Amino acid sequence: MGVVIPFEGSGNEKRASLDPLVRLVQSDMDRVNEAIMARAHSHVELIPELAGHLINSGGKRIRPMLTLAAARMCGYQGDHHLKLATAVEFMHTATLLHDDVVDESDLRRGKEAARVIWGNQASVLVGDYLLGQAFKMMVETGSLEALRILANAAAVIAEGEVLQLSMSQDTSTTEDAYLHVIGAKTAALFSAAAEVGSVIALRPRPEQAALESYGRNLGIAFQLIDDALDYSGSEALLGKGVGDDFRERKITLPVVLSYRRGAAEERNFWKRTLEDGNQTADDLSYAKKLMERHGAIADTIERANHYGDIARDALAIFPDSEWKSALSEAVDFCVARAY
Amino acid sequence: MGVVIPFEGSGNEKRASLDPLVRLVQSDMDRVNEAIMARAHSHVELIPELAGHLINSGGKRIRPMLTLAAARMCGYQGDHHLKLATAVEFMHTATLLHDDVVDESDLRRGKEAARVIWGNQASVLVGDYLLGQAFKMMVETGSLEALRILANAAAVIAEGEVLQLSMSQDTSTTEDAYLHVIGAKTAALFSAAAEVGSVIALRPRPEQAALESYGRNLGIAFQLIDDALDYSGSEALLGKGVGDDFRERKITLPVVLSYRRGAAEERNFWKRTLEDGNQTADDLSYAKKLMERHGAIADTIERANHYGDIARDALAIFPDSEWKSALSEAVDFCVARAY
Repeated sequence: MGVVIPFEGSGNEKRASLDPLVRLVQSDMDRVNEAIMARAHSHVELIPELAGHLINSGGKRIRPMLTLAAARMCGYQGDHHLKLATAVEFMHTATLLHDDVVDESDLRRGKEAARVIWGNQASVLVGDYLLGQAFKMMVETGSLEALRILANAAAVIAEGEVLQLSMSQDTSTTEDAYLHVIGAKTAALFSAAAEVGSVIALRPRPEQAALESYGRNLGIAFQLIDDALDYSGSEALLGKGVGDDFRERKITLPVVLSYRRGAAEERNFWKRTLEDGNQTADDLSYAKKLMERHGAIADTIERANHYGDIARDALAIFPDSEWKSALSEAVDFCVARAY
Repeated sequence: MGVVIPFEGSGNEKRASLDPLVRLVQSDMDRVNEAIMARAHSHVELIPELAGHLINSGGKRIRPMLTLAAARMCGYQGDHHLKLATAVEFMHTATLLHDDVVDESDLRRGKEAARVIWGNQASVLVGDYLLGQAFKMMVETGSLEALRILANAAAVIAEGEVLQLSMSQDTSTTEDAYLHVIGAKTAALFSAAAEVGSVIALRPRPEQAALESYGRNLGIAFQLIDDALDYSGSEALLGKGVGDDFRERKITLPVVLSYRRGAAEERNFWKRTLEDGNQTADDLSYAKKLMERHGAIADTIERANHYGDIARDALAIFPDSEWKSALSEAVDFCVARAY
């Protein structure tokens, strides 16, 4: 079963939390967790073994929670939202399996990546299997509109990853180009996850559009905070190595800002370490120092706040409800992770 | 554009040919080829570049032809079969891209594999992109039944590949276990490709089941002949290296039969070369000699004939038509490739 990472906000009662959302979706989420285990099953033992390794590794399952909460906020009473939420989590899991192969990562959520244990080959194929299972579940809901939205997200996510691949190691990447990448590789699934909740509830277009916008902006904020934490967080909080992005030579917003604001000598540092991949033991801490000097982490968080604000405002057309409050507080939580 | 490999049957007028099928679907296929180019497009240039490399490399496009011909034989008059055929070819292309990564192949259809030129990473992601595009096209047809069949095929194919991975390098694999693998990794898409043709034409269950059976058995025959050709064909005919399966230590039917029929000393040879992966320069020709000794190639072709017969009989419930004749002759052609 998925371990939900608890909010550690003792002492400060005002601190944003994911708890209200987690509490509200709890009974639905229990059924989604059952479906996840059931649908990752196969008589080919390697499949549940490998999939289970990642599935049981304690992700927050924020994406399926968005689907569940969006459907409930829209008054949905059936149980097709459970299938869509499970499909969304499978799409995410498939992406992670393929990402680890693409990034040659050794760690995922603080555990050895599946590709290290079972090899790249099995990771690619089990990812494909989970994607197939995801589409089967979507078909079972009978919603062509939900299928359209999620199939489109699948294509956009892959497109965003290819784009990231072709622009990787280019320190002159603009902030806009970077936003385009994370809009595709991260925000597309957040957005689709939230939108299909209203689709299955057969809500009118403006509500679908509101949830699409909520999800997209939340996804962008979420990814920006992830990027900031990769340089400023602790390993325990991240569930992956601090400085992974630096070692993998990824161009994220803290780098984009530091490069643009830096002097020629600093730009040479970024080129050497990220473009040429020529890194020494002290480079990560020097990179952090440059980010500090230019306020790159603080401003990345500031940018995340901006998208978080848009996400919250997108929800405004919905009547007040505990669901709406919880979805809104989830935005605060995602952004507040960085402090 | 896809180069259709012509049948070189000059001199022998009775020889089975794919020509009648190719001729009948020609105008539909032209539109499918246009759709393939249009749908592989992306503003991310690497995607059409990489996808185009494989798409333009001269596959026979037998799978989309099955969809087109099945739909027409069932009297379909619309144009959704074009979308399904394109989706089927994209699913196949995605599988090839992922397969090359999994098999670490250097050649595909006689050209350098995409992964050699653009890397494993791009091959995985562009495969994912094409799969997403395939599902988008299926959604556009509005046929939940076609979606169900093709989503299921996607999961079964991946499952079959994982199974192959976990039983690879086991020379004691039974013929049944091997059939199970190719039933999943090859026949599932042939079967789905043919079946969705009748589904889009809204034909009754018995006709769907007939085309499903036709496709499945044709797919098994096709794969068995491929396996035989890998030891007995010429490189030009194969579009890949002769002996690739041996070098990649794949357990195919010619090996299964030779191993079972061989003496202890011969079994040690198979174990050394395929299980332990300890191969010398002369081993491939000795492997061929053992296959010759035990009639393993001839019997693999004989087995293929058996499945080909089932495929032809599955079509019998349809009234005679040029479509039916062409689909039937396609079976003869697939089996006759080996002679």
